[in-house]
Amino acid sequence: MNQDMMPTGVNLGIDGPSLLADIAETAAFGGTAKGGICRLALGAEDRQVRDWLGTQAAALGGVLTVDSMGNQFIHLPGSDPALPPLVMGSHLDTQPTGGKYDGIYGVLAGLSALRALQRSGYRMRHPVELVNWTNEEGSRFAPAMMSSGVFTGAFTQAQAYGTQDARGTTFGQALEEIGYRGAEPCGQHPVRAYFELHIEQGPILEKEGITIGAVTGVQAMRWFDLRLSGQEAHAGTTPRAMRRDALLAAAHVMIMIDEIAQSYGADTRATVGVIQVQPGSTNVVPGEVQMSLDLRHPDDDVIAAVEERIRTEAARQAEQQGVTLSMKRIWDSPAVHFDPDCVEMVRRAASLTGQSYRDIVSGAGHDAAYMGHICPTAMIFIPCRDGLSHNEAEHAEAGDIVAGANVLLHAIMAADAHFDPA
Amino acid sequence: MNQDMMPTGVNLGIDGPSLLADIAETAAFGGTAKGGICRLALGAEDRQVRDWLGTQAAALGGVLTVDSMGNQFIHLPGSDPALPPLVMGSHLDTQPTGGKYDGIYGVLAGLSALRALQRSGYRMRHPVELVNWTNEEGSRFAPAMMSSGVFTGAFTQAQAYGTQDARGTTFGQALEEIGYRGAEPCGQHPVRAYFELHIEQGPILEKEGITIGAVTGVQAMRWFDLRLSGQEAHAGTTPRAMRRDALLAAAHVMIMIDEIAQSYGADTRATVGVIQVQPGSTNVVPGEVQMSLDLRHPDDDVIAAVEERIRTEAARQAEQQGVTLSMKRIWDSPAVHFDPDCVEMVRRAASLTGQSYRDIVSGAGHDAAYMGHICPTAMIFIPCRDGLSHNEAEHAEAGDIVAGANVLLHAIMAADAHFDPA
Repeated sequence: MNQDMMPTGVNLGIDGPSLLADIAETAAFGGTAKGGICRLALGAEDRQVRDWLGTQAAALGGVLTVDSMGNQFIHLPGSDPALPPLVMGSHLDTQPTGGKYDGIYGVLAGLSALRALQRSGYRMRHPVELVNWTNEEGSRFAPAMMSSGVFTGAFTQAQAYGTQDARGTTFGQALEEIGYRGAEPCGQHPVRAYFELHIEQGPILEKEGITIGAVTGVQAMRWFDLRLSGQEAHAGTTPRAMRRDALLAAAHVMIMIDEIAQSYGADTRATVGVIQVQPGSTNVVPGEVQMSLDLRHPDDDVIAAVEERIRTEAARQAEQQGVTLSMKRIWDSPAVHFDPDCVEMVRRAASLTGQSYRDIVSGAGHDAAYMGHICPTAMIFIPCRDGLSHNEAEHAEAGDIVAGANVLLHAIMAADAHFDPA
Repeated sequence: MNQDMMPTGVNLGIDGPSLLADIAETAAFGGTAKGGICRLALGAEDRQVRDWLGTQAAALGGVLTVDSMGNQFIHLPGSDPALPPLVMGSHLDTQPTGGKYDGIYGVLAGLSALRALQRSGYRMRHPVELVNWTNEEGSRFAPAMMSSGVFTGAFTQAQAYGTQDARGTTFGQALEEIGYRGAEPCGQHPVRAYFELHIEQGPILEKEGITIGAVTGVQAMRWFDLRLSGQEAHAGTTPRAMRRDALLAAAHVMIMIDEIAQSYGADTRATVGVIQVQPGSTNVVPGEVQMSLDLRHPDDDVIAAVEERIRTEAARQAEQQGVTLSMKRIWDSPAVHFDPDCVEMVRRAASLTGQSYRDIVSGAGHDAAYMGHICPTAMIFIPCRDGLSHNEAEHAEAGDIVAGANVLLHAIMAADAHFDPA
């Protein structure tokens, strides 16, 4: 498209081939043999991609700011210098065997939106910015979403700086080493509203053949450690009636959890992903089982109710097998509800650009979840193949990639009209 | 008791305090801090206890023979030199964290029976022997029951000799090293009948308050390797309806196996003792599960029927969860039925000595299971605390220990009257 033909913005679009080329080009920084990326936060490859982003910022005439957590902001001025910026963003770090889209897509699509605005001659009132958040994955330095967490006050910069990787290097040291400890204190950067574009990392959009997910929030998540204690016994000599089989009890508990979760509707997610058995011998009835439970639901009240029912009924199930159960909550992340106006901007941007869309709740955490605490926020999802993510085989279709970037662009344009009316 | 008072044999009894003292004395050979024994086959401690047994044989005037597998036989002549010996026995090797009774009790009680016969003046027609089988446990050299296996032709001596321990030492080398490779070819030793006394290694006798188990056989055992293949998926983003959760499917399969096993009566034992999950992460729906199944029943036809039903219904269960199942049989040990006459001798010996008794099927393997293939055989069980065995805390009550030894003695005496009538 030619920017000169669409000064009103209605038909403004990003440069698809250029976005796809950026994805391919930056995938070389930490690229793996299997077509994925290993680009851990604050490593040499992370510095390479950051430097690349800085070069792009300069090329489009943006102003680059790096804050004290290494977050990179690229600023394009608006017509009203008094207004705070509308911000798009995500992250450029990856999992150790990550794909080419998780996080990266949101940053590079934001870059394509900045370019489209810059080159179109379309004049925004608000400044528009792109942010690359440091260490969203948390693979090298835990926890995940570290720098948006510091930015929004979820924890302190001192805590983040002190975090060590497996080799004992602190986050603070690693940040210095790659030269990305910026002068601006993290969190002091103004943000009027925040939009994050991301692959779904789940199967819903692909399965339903829908291109755009208007993300209404991030579901509540709770993690539990379950321990079942029965009695170790000889598999050959111990009659069924005298057994206190911790693994058989665990099987009953797992099925009961699944049934309870299903009874609370299709938005409930309950997963036992880890199970360990003691003594773990073919001819010994297991005496001890430890297992994880990952529980999620978009609504805090519902997740609390599900937890309560599981606690009551799991204990009863275990008891019926002569086994005692302890269930300890080890993580609690309340639901995030994105700004209804921002979500509506996403829906309308999808409609305007001719894309199919539906509301969706994010099952995974994102920087947007923290940003939602301090400013109007929404997210945009596009499908990814087989719902696969955190995997070198992660894939998104070119058509969806371009469509999502255009929705991001138009959502930002809608936000410019919506906020701070003249 | 005084042997001079009971020349008819009816009131003949073993010397209880001496048997208990022998158990305590030999427990020092490999004794552990926790009160158990670590006396692996053909190690230095095994030589010590073998030497000790040889000394006892000489003290009671018995003739010691060691065969080419290191099996020790102590021979007391009978009145008819043409008759083959009645043999009592078990093993003196232990698990790495074994107890003081598994195997040991059968050998030392047999020794006490030999002493009682020798000192009483009671004259048996058959020779009476005690055997200490080499490497019953199979902890250092697999498989278990190795030397009774060679003795009865289950496998060859060459196979046994070539077996290596974890350090690469062969069974043959180790046997030479401790000086217990005897001249008599293994298997050429005549045996008229075989009786083995053992702790139950299960909870039934203790729970029912019964002192003697008349063991009618050893149940059939089959081991299986089950693998369930579903689809690894994100725990937060994958709706229940789109999951192919291998662990949830495994839970359904485990409960189904338990229900099928129970439907075949109280003698069926089905145990899943090992379970491993891939990828084994709290927030990932498991894609793969590997689990063991240990299946046992006294009847070969029944175990075959149970296996068949599990195969059909487990596959269906897994399929309902969108998961494929493979079930591979990796071990098959048919049922052993002991000689009905020998079992009856055990019942009568219990009755004669005033002990409560019941028929019982051995849930574990024993040297007697192999011996049952070549001669009339039976076993005698006594209770052990909490059914605990292969454990340093293994315990049997002194009263039961003495009672069992007396039943062994009287069963042998009954066998002497029963076999080869004059």
